[in-house]
Amino acid sequence: MFPDPPGCSFASDNAAGIHPEVLAAISAANTGHALAYGADSWTAQVEQEFNDLFGQKVSVFLTLNGTGTNILALATMLQPGESVLCTDWSHINDDEAAAPERILSTKLIPTPSVDGKMSVDSIHARAEALGNIHHAQPGVLSLTQATEWGTTYSVDEIGELCEVAHSYGMRVHVDGARIANAVAALGKGRAGLREMIVETGVDTMSFGGTKNGLMAAEAVIHLTPYPVQLGQHLRKQVNQLGSKMRFVAAQFIAALTDDRWLDWASHANSMATILHSGATGIIGDAAGAPPAVNSMFPTLPDSVAHPLRDWCFFWGWNSASSQHRWMTSWDTTHQDVDRFLEGLRLAVNHSEHRN
Amino acid sequence: MFPDPPGCSFASDNAAGIHPEVLAAISAANTGHALAYGADSWTAQVEQEFNDLFGQKVSVFLTLNGTGTNILALATMLQPGESVLCTDWSHINDDEAAAPERILSTKLIPTPSVDGKMSVDSIHARAEALGNIHHAQPGVLSLTQATEWGTTYSVDEIGELCEVAHSYGMRVHVDGARIANAVAALGKGRAGLREMIVETGVDTMSFGGTKNGLMAAEAVIHLTPYPVQLGQHLRKQVNQLGSKMRFVAAQFIAALTDDRWLDWASHANSMATILHSGATGIIGDAAGAPPAVNSMFPTLPDSVAHPLRDWCFFWGWNSASSQHRWMTSWDTTHQDVDRFLEGLRLAVNHSEHRN
Amino acid sequence: MFPDPPGCSFASDNAAGIHPEVLAAISAANTGHALAYGADSWTAQVEQEFNDLFGQKVSVFLTLNGTGTNILALATMLQPGESVLCTDWSHINDDEAAAPERILSTKLIPTPSVDGKMSVDSIHARAEALGNIHHAQPGVLSLTQATEWGTTYSVDEIGELCEVAHSYGMRVHVDGARIANAVAALGKGRAGLREMIVETGVDTMSFGGTKNGLMAAEAVIHLTPYPVQLGQHLRKQVNQLGSKMRFVAAQFIAALTDDRWLDWASHANSMATILHSGATGIIGDAAGAPPAVNSMFPTLPDSVAHPLRDWCFFWGWNSASSQHRWMTSWDTTHQDVDRFLEGLRLAVNHSEHRN
Amino acid sequence: MFPDPPGCSFASDNAAGIHPEVLAAISAANTGHALAYGADSWTAQVEQEFNDLFGQKVSVFLTLNGTGTNILALATMLQPGESVLCTDWSHINDDEAAAPERILSTKLIPTPSVDGKMSVDSIHARAEALGNIHHAQPGVLSLTQATEWGTTYSVDEIGELCEVAHSYGMRVHVDGARIANAVAALGKGRAGLREMIVETGVDTMSFGGTKNGLMAAEAVIHLTPYPVQLGQHLRKQVNQLGSKMRFVAAQFIAALTDDRWLDWASHANSMATILHSGATGIIGDAAGAPPAVNSMFPTLPDSVAHPLRDWCFFWGWNSASSQHRWMTSWDTTHQDVDRFLEGLRLAVNHSEHRN
Repeated sequence: MFPDPPGCSFASDNAAGIHPEVLAAISAANTGHALAYGADSWTAQVEQEFNDLFGQKVSVFLTLNGTGTNILALATMLQPGESVLCTDWSHINDDEAAAPERILSTKLIPTPSVDGKMSVDSIHARAEALGNIHHAQPGVLSLTQATEWGTTYSVDEIGELCEVAHSYGMRVHVDGARIANAVAALGKGRAGLREMIVETGVDTMSFGGTKNGLMAAEAVIHLTPYPVQLGQHLRKQVNQLGSKMRFVAAQFIAALTDDRWLDWASHANSMATILHSGATGIIGDAAGAPPAVNSMFPTLPDSVAHPLRDWCFFWGWNSASSQHRWMTSWDTTHQDVDRFLEGLRLAVNHSEHRN
Repeated sequence: MFPDPPGCSFASDNAAGIHPEVLAAISAANTGHALAYGADSWTAQVEQEFNDLFGQKVSVFLTLNGTGTNILALATMLQPGESVLCTDWSHINDDEAAAPERILSTKLIPTPSVDGKMSVDSIHARAEALGNIHHAQPGVLSLTQATEWGTTYSVDEIGELCEVAHSYGMRVHVDGARIANAVAALGKGRAGLREMIVETGVDTMSFGGTKNGLMAAEAVIHLTPYPVQLGQHLRKQVNQLGSKMRFVAAQFIAALTDDRWLDWASHANSMATILHSGATGIIGDAAGAPPAVNSMFPTLPDSVAHPLRDWCFFWGWNSASSQHRWMTSWDTTHQDVDRFLEGLRLAVNHSEHRN
Repeated sequence: MFPDPPGCSFASDNAAGIHPEVLAAISAANTGHALAYGADSWTAQVEQEFNDLFGQKVSVFLTLNGTGTNILALATMLQPGESVLCTDWSHINDDEAAAPERILSTKLIPTPSVDGKMSVDSIHARAEALGNIHHAQPGVLSLTQATEWGTTYSVDEIGELCEVAHSYGMRVHVDGARIANAVAALGKGRAGLREMIVETGVDTMSFGGTKNGLMAAEAVIHLTPYPVQLGQHLRKQVNQLGSKMRFVAAQFIAALTDDRWLDWASHANSMATILHSGATGIIGDAAGAPPAVNSMFPTLPDSVAHPLRDWCFFWGWNSASSQHRWMTSWDTTHQDVDRFLEGLRLAVNHSEHRN
Repeated sequence: MFPDPPGCSFASDNAAGIHPEVLAAISAANTGHALAYGADSWTAQVEQEFNDLFGQKVSVFLTLNGTGTNILALATMLQPGESVLCTDWSHINDDEAAAPERILSTKLIPTPSVDGKMSVDSIHARAEALGNIHHAQPGVLSLTQATEWGTTYSVDEIGELCEVAHSYGMRVHVDGARIANAVAALGKGRAGLREMIVETGVDTMSFGGTKNGLMAAEAVIHLTPYPVQLGQHLRKQVNQLGSKMRFVAAQFIAALTDDRWLDWASHANSMATILHSGATGIIGDAAGAPPAVNSMFPTLPDSVAHPLRDWCFFWGWNSASSQHRWMTSWDTTHQDVDRFLEGLRLAVNHSEHRN
C-alpha cells in the first residue's frame, strides 16, 4: 500500500545523525595528544564562545547526554534537603527513568500542566509547603523550553515565573534540550537567547546539542559564575565527565560558529510548519495546533496511526487522547515531508475505505 | 635545555585521540536516521560480535565513560543492602570522585593491596563480617585488570579469587578499562579473554574502549544473560544511555573487527617495554618493575620529575614514594619514546650537575 | 469568649501520651541487662504474638517511627531500579519530607485520588509504562489503611487492588499507621485484620503503634517469611534500629495482650463519631462525611476556624477547600468532645454575630 | 564450673536498662496532650538546658538512635559533593551497616588509626586530594570521643585536629556516643565539656544518651546556630524525628539535671578501672591498657574466652589480635565485677589445667 518511507523518519530529532560540520570538527580535533577531562584547548575555546553567546561570563560544564545534563544542573543548584518543582510532563519527571531521584536522592514535585507549561499559580500553591518540615521543600523550579509538548514559553512568561520563584527563594533551571528550536522560533538570532534566558533571570540551564545535529554533546550553563572545581567534581559524580572531552567541545564549536545551531534548528522548525500545514489539509483539526518549534501532536485513530507508524515509525504521546508526536530535525527534507504526507493520505483513505 | 617534546605525551592513554579506523566507522554510521537509544542495527551487530568474542551468549550494555561503566556494572550486580569489596587503590575507590557511593548509595570497602592487587586473604578477612547486621555486607568483589599499578592478575589468580568470592556468595566484577592491554599481554589473542574472564568464573565486566583508541565507548558485559530491559533501565538511571547510540556501537565494531583492539593494545604494551628498557639504562632500578602492560612507575626525585613533566606532562602516582606514572598508548611511536628518553637523560644530567 | 480548652486536643492522635498499660510494660521490662538490637526475650515474644495475630508465620521488624517504618517496608520490597506507585495524598508522598526519595533513592509515582484512595484504573494507567526503559517502573503499590483522609478501603477493594497490582508483577504495601482504627471499624476483632490484610493478598505492611497509645513503636510485617538478617541489616541502614529494642517490643506486647490495641482504637473511633454527630448539629453538612475511623474533615470559614484553633489547636488539611482535620485518640473523653463542641458553638455564634 | 553470672553483663553499656530517674521523667511527662514533633514544652526546656551546659547558644536536634544521630550531624554539615574523613575503626565507617553511605550518598574516607585515634598526619595526607576533581573531597572530619577502642583524645589533641581540619576548610564532627564517659574521665565536671568541645573549635557533635542510662535519646548539637527549619527537615529526612518527642526530651532533662549524666558515666568509668585492676591480677598484661573510660580490651585465648563468654556474654573486638571488649555501664555493681572476675579466674584455671 505504501511507497518507500521517507529517508528521514519523524520519530525524533535524536534519530537524525551528525551534521557534517560537526563530524568535520571532531575529525579536525583528532590531532595527537591532549590532556583528558577538559584540560584541552578546545574546551577553553568553547567556554569563551559560550561567554560570547550569552553576552556575559557564564560557567560551562560540557556533558554527555540529556538526562545527565539535567541532573548535573540540578546537582549544582540544590542545597541540602531541597526538592525540585516541575511539571508532570517534564522530561525530568516523566522520561528520565527515575534517574534524578536516584542520583540526586531528592524528590521531584510534579504539578499539573497545560500544554506542558508550568503556571505561576502552581508555584504559589506549592510554596505553601515552604517552612513546613514535613513537606518536601522546593528549592529549584525547573522549566523546559521548548516544552515536551512542543510549545514555548514567551519571554514574559519566563520572566514572571522567575520572578515568582525567586520571591520564594527558589532558583530557576531551564531544561533546554531544545533551546535552539525555541530561540530560533523567537526569530531574533542569538540575541533571542539573551532575552529569553539572561534577561528573564534564569539561573542555570541545560543547553542541548545532540537533538540539534551534534553527535553527543550537551552543556550545563550557569548564568552566574559557579565554582569551577565543584562543578567539575559534581560532573564526575553524576557520570557526565568523559576523558576525551575535546571531542565534545569540538562539536559545540562547530555548532556555535556562525550561529549554525540556530540555522539548523530553524530548518527543523520550518519543516514542522510545512508538515503541519500539509497534514491539516488531510486530517483537518486533528493535526492539532500549529508547531511552535519542530513537533506536532496529531490525534489519530488507531486505524490510521498503526499502519502509518509501521511504515514510518513515530511515537505515541498520550494514549488517553490518541495523540502522537511527529518531529522534524536538522536534516528533514521537503521530500521527506512530502513522502510522509503521501503516506498519511494513503493511511487515512485506507482507514475510511475500511469503515 | 629540552628539545621539542614528543608528539605523544606519556600522560595517559586517554590523552591519545581517536584511532582512524574508529573515526571512519563513526563517519560510515552517519547515514540518515536510526532509532535512538540502541534500537539500531549497529547496536545489534556489536552485541553479536561480543557474543563471538566471548564465545558464548553475553549481555551487552554499551556505555559512555569509564566511571559510569563501573557504576552500571555494580548497579546490575548489587542486591538490596549489599556493599562492594575492592582494593584501596582501585579506580572505583580512589579515582571516581565518590560517584559510586553517590549513585549506588552503598559502601565500597577498601582493602590494603600489594601492586594494586586484591588478595585471597583480604576476602577471607572481610568475609568475617558477613551475617553481622552492623557491618557492611560485601555482595560483589571488584577486581581491576590490568590494575591501577600497571600489573596484571594471572589467570590462575583470577580463578582463585572468583572461587573464594563465590564461596561466600559474592559475585565478581572486573573493571576492564584496560582489559585489552591485559589480554594482549597474555599473548593468546582473543582466546586469552575467554581464558581470563569466562573460564575463571567472572560474572560481569567493564569492557573498556576509550583508553584503547575509541572516542568514547565502553560496555558492561554480563557473562551470563541479564534481563535486557532491567539493564537498559538501570543504564538510563545511571546516566549512561546516549540517544545516538549507533555511534558508540560503531566504535566497538571498528575495534573488534579483525581483533584490532588487541593489535592496538599490543602496540601500546610494547612501547612501554621499550620505554622501560631505555629508562633503566638511564636511571637503573629507579625505573621500577618492567611493565606488564602499558605503564611504568619510575621513582624520580623532584629535581628530575619537575622539569621533565613541565616539558612533557605526566602524572605523579604516589607522593609518599615519589613514584610517577608513564603511560603509552595506541599511537605512541618509537620516535616519541626516543625523544622522551632524551628528555629524561637531560633532566637527570641537569639534576646531577646541580647537586 | 471561650472556656478552658478540652484536656485532650483534637490535633492528632500522636498528640496523645502513652497508654498506662504501655508505660507499665516499659517499666516491667526494665530489669537488668539484655542484649541490645533485638537479641532479647521481649522481641522474641512479640514476634510470636504477631504470628498469632496474623494467624500465620510472619516476619517482624520492630521500628522507631512511622516514616522510617514505611521506608524500611519499601526498602525490603523494592528490587533494583524499581519505583513506588502511591496516591498524591499518601503520607509517603506528601508528609514524609522527601525522606523516601532520599533514603530509597527512587521515585514515588503519585496518582490522583478520591477521598485519599487509590483506584484500580490508576494502576492500569500507570502500568502502561512497564517495560519502557525511559519511565519509572513501579514495582510496589502502596496503599494507606485507614487513609490520610480518614476513609477506609473495604476488604474487597483491597483484594481487587492486590489482584491488579500482582497481575502486573507489583507487590502491595499497606501503610497501616492507623491499621488499628481500620480493623476496629470493621468490627470483627483480630479476625478482621486477617481478612483485610492476609486474605486479600497484601505482601507487606507498616503496622502502626505510636498513634494508638504507644510511646514510639512501629513494625514492618512481611506476610510471607523474609530473610531475617537482610531485614535487620536494612533496618539498620535506614536508621530504624535502636539499641534497647526490648522497650519497643514491650510496648507492642502490652498492646497486643487481650487485643487492647483494638479496644483503644475502637474508643478513638467512637469518640470521632460522637464528635461528628455533635458537629453536624451545629454546622450541618459542613461537618463532612461521618468518620470511618477517628477523624473528620469539616469545612470551616476562617472566621470560625481561626479562633477555634487558637483556643484548641487542630490542623488545616486542604487550604483550597477550607477543610480542617479533627482527630480523636485513645484518651479522648466524652467531656473533651463536649467541651470542644461548646467551643465550636461559640465560635460559630461569634462569627455569625460579627457578620 | 561457673557460679551464677553477674546481674549486669559486660557486653555493652547499651545492654543496660533505663536509669530510674529517666523512667520517672518519662512517666512525669505523660500528662495529657502535647503537640507532636517537638512543638512541646519539654523540648523547649531541654534546648535551654543544652545552652546552659555548653555555656552558649547551641542548636539542638533531638534524635532516636546513635547511627541516625551521626547521619543527621553529617547531613547538616556536608555541602554538595563533599565526603567525610574518619578512621577505619570509626563507628560510622565500621559499625553502621553502610547507613551513612546509603542515606548521605557520599563516601566515608577511612584512614589508618592507632588506638582508634585520628592523627594530624592522616589529615595532611588526605588533604592532598583537595582540589583534584577525581578524588573524594573531604569536607568534614569526624572524630569519636571516647573512641571505639576505649581511648580518649586529650583536649589539646582535639584542638590541634580542629585547627588542621579548619585550615583545609573542613568542619569537625565529634561522635560523642560516649561523650559523657570522656568528659567524666576529664574530671572537670561540665566545664570539661566546654573545654573539650567548645574551646577546641568542634563544629558539631553527636551527644549520646542511650549508652548512659537513657532509654532512647540522642542529640545533634551545633556549636554555632544552625537554621532550625532546615535541621528539623533534615532530621525528618533521615528518619530521626519521632512524633511524641516530649518523651525524648524528658529523658535528657532527667540526665542533665544536677549533672547526673556525669555521675552515671563516672560510675561506669570507675567500675571499668576496678575490673581492669582485678583482671590484671589474674591475667597480667593480657588485660591490656588501663581503661580511659568504661571499657577494656583484654587479649584472651579461645580456651578462656569461649567458656567465659558462654557464661557471661561479651563481644570479640579484633579476631586477628584475639582482643575482646569488656564494658561497664551506669548500673554495674561491685558485686557484678567481683563475680565476673571470679568467672575469669575459673576460666583461666580451667584452661591451664587442660593444657
